[in-house]
Amino acid sequence: MIPIVVSTWRFGQKANLPAYEILQSGGTALDAVVAGVAVAEQDPEVKSVGYGGYPNAEGEVEVDAAIINGRTLGYGAVTGLKNIINPTALARLVMEKTDHVMLTAQGALKFAQEQGFQECNMLTDAAHEAWQKWKTEQTNKPTDAHDTIGMIAIDTHGDIAAACTTSGVAFKLPGRVGDSPLIGSGLYADNEVGAAAATGQGEEIARTCGSYAIIEHMRQGKSPQEACETVVQHLIKRVPTSQKFQMAYIAIDKHGNYGGAAARDGFHFAVATENENTLYPGKYFIQNEET
Amino acid sequence: MIPIVVSTWRFGQKANLPAYEILQSGGTALDAVVAGVAVAEQDPEVKSVGYGGYPNAEGEVEVDAAIINGRTLGYGAVTGLKNIINPTALARLVMEKTDHVMLTAQGALKFAQEQGFQECNMLTDAAHEAWQKWKTEQTNKPTDAHDTIGMIAIDTHGDIAAACTTSGVAFKLPGRVGDSPLIGSGLYADNEVGAAAATGQGEEIARTCGSYAIIEHMRQGKSPQEACETVVQHLIKRVPTSQKFQMAYIAIDKHGNYGGAAARDGFHFAVATENENTLYPGKYFIQNEET
Repeated sequence: MIPIVVSTWRFGQKANLPAYEILQSGGTALDAVVAGVAVAEQDPEVKSVGYGGYPNAEGEVEVDAAIINGRTLGYGAVTGLKNIINPTALARLVMEKTDHVMLTAQGALKFAQEQGFQECNMLTDAAHEAWQKWKTEQTNKPTDAHDTIGMIAIDTHGDIAAACTTSGVAFKLPGRVGDSPLIGSGLYADNEVGAAAATGQGEEIARTCGSYAIIEHMRQGKSPQEACETVVQHLIKRVPTSQKFQMAYIAIDKHGNYGGAAARDGFHFAVATENENTLYPGKYFIQNEET
Repeated sequence: MIPIVVSTWRFGQKANLPAYEILQSGGTALDAVVAGVAVAEQDPEVKSVGYGGYPNAEGEVEVDAAIINGRTLGYGAVTGLKNIINPTALARLVMEKTDHVMLTAQGALKFAQEQGFQECNMLTDAAHEAWQKWKTEQTNKPTDAHDTIGMIAIDTHGDIAAACTTSGVAFKLPGRVGDSPLIGSGLYADNEVGAAAATGQGEEIARTCGSYAIIEHMRQGKSPQEACETVVQHLIKRVPTSQKFQMAYIAIDKHGNYGGAAARDGFHFAVATENENTLYPGKYFIQNEET
């Protein structure tokens, strides 16, 4: 099997590099997606994921992440987690080392400490400044803060995995959890079919279990591209309020075919496979108004 | 439309009473499910939901709950919440009064305080004693602690809602969240199709987005009973480890047909509609070993 990794947004291209290296050398899809999304988690320039992400309304960075193993349907997630820079690696340990699938807040932090994760300050000066400006001047929330990284991969053994990690919407209520760590919403993978992940306004995405729906559409014969488009169109039609927001999906099937679609203009996804790491525009259904 | 309410387990019969009263007098499905599951949330004899539920490994009761509005696909949830006796009512306010769909832990508690919810000690003497016995004598965990209440209802206007509320598995790791508050896993509802809810071992249920899958099977023409059976069988087949556990689903379609199925013997669900409030055994696929 020729390995492949697909991830959301322009920054996905950089995140694909270590992931694809792992896949190419025969490593597992699980290892690949953990290493891949860690690039965005650690990058202070990515304002919607991990370190450097915008904080909540009280100025604290809280992150959510999840991972799924397509072979076993094993699932692990952490939500409302503070001070841990690689929540996806922690989500994987929830999956592999506990009887549970999701740990939240203080319980997740305690588990991280037990597993030897280092705590660190996740709030960069830039994110702190943006929060302070919003807080004191009541400026608009930044619009670059729903660009969650979702990553889906197939390894040389044919095993499939997905991961999704985010610091959530800027200046959210403390404790807010979006779609990213929710199985079937932010991500899904099943070796029998393929994998999918979501990005965009989590509150809208969470209404239709789109990542799971994509898997089911592919199970019934749709291509990854057709499945992504079907799910975006269903959400736009079924929930008219969702039309105000960006919502996007990526998908791969077990043969390595891929696709991506978005509600609105502007979404890109990055595909790394044999001899390429390419950025593709997602097909979209709503033209952004000119500004 | 003749209203109907269906809920999980034997205690569902009692919970159906206030729910059906609301439906019968023309009230909404959302009001009905909140009032219905509150019966279990407040009942100290129900060891798996709200007040009287078994605590986590550190002796603290932490609850999760969610609600979904089938008309709008609005969704609200709280997870890892302490000291609040009616988490489903709070989940509804997350849905109706915030821009978010899920609040966790301290953030959820703070929101509860702002909304005027009273805090109270959720740990009964009986639950505390059971925890202490487990802690000091390393006894087995109680087996009556995965009996989450899920409730699905259609009102006279044809609107559909679902709710799911739990204190989770006994003596869980602090911060553990199961399937109950996860949209598509613990519950789903869509006026175009019907509603579904899950109960049982949350870690297994969360692997296959079964509540959402039931809705999609019904959308494609399966009856609620067929859809529940399909999803249980898929999970048993796809995840062999799940065969050790109880997992069950209930469903209604928009015409008021209902069904329920379980992995194992012992599951019952309660159906209240015109002139009846009846307990039905769920069809099952694995016979419990004789003890």
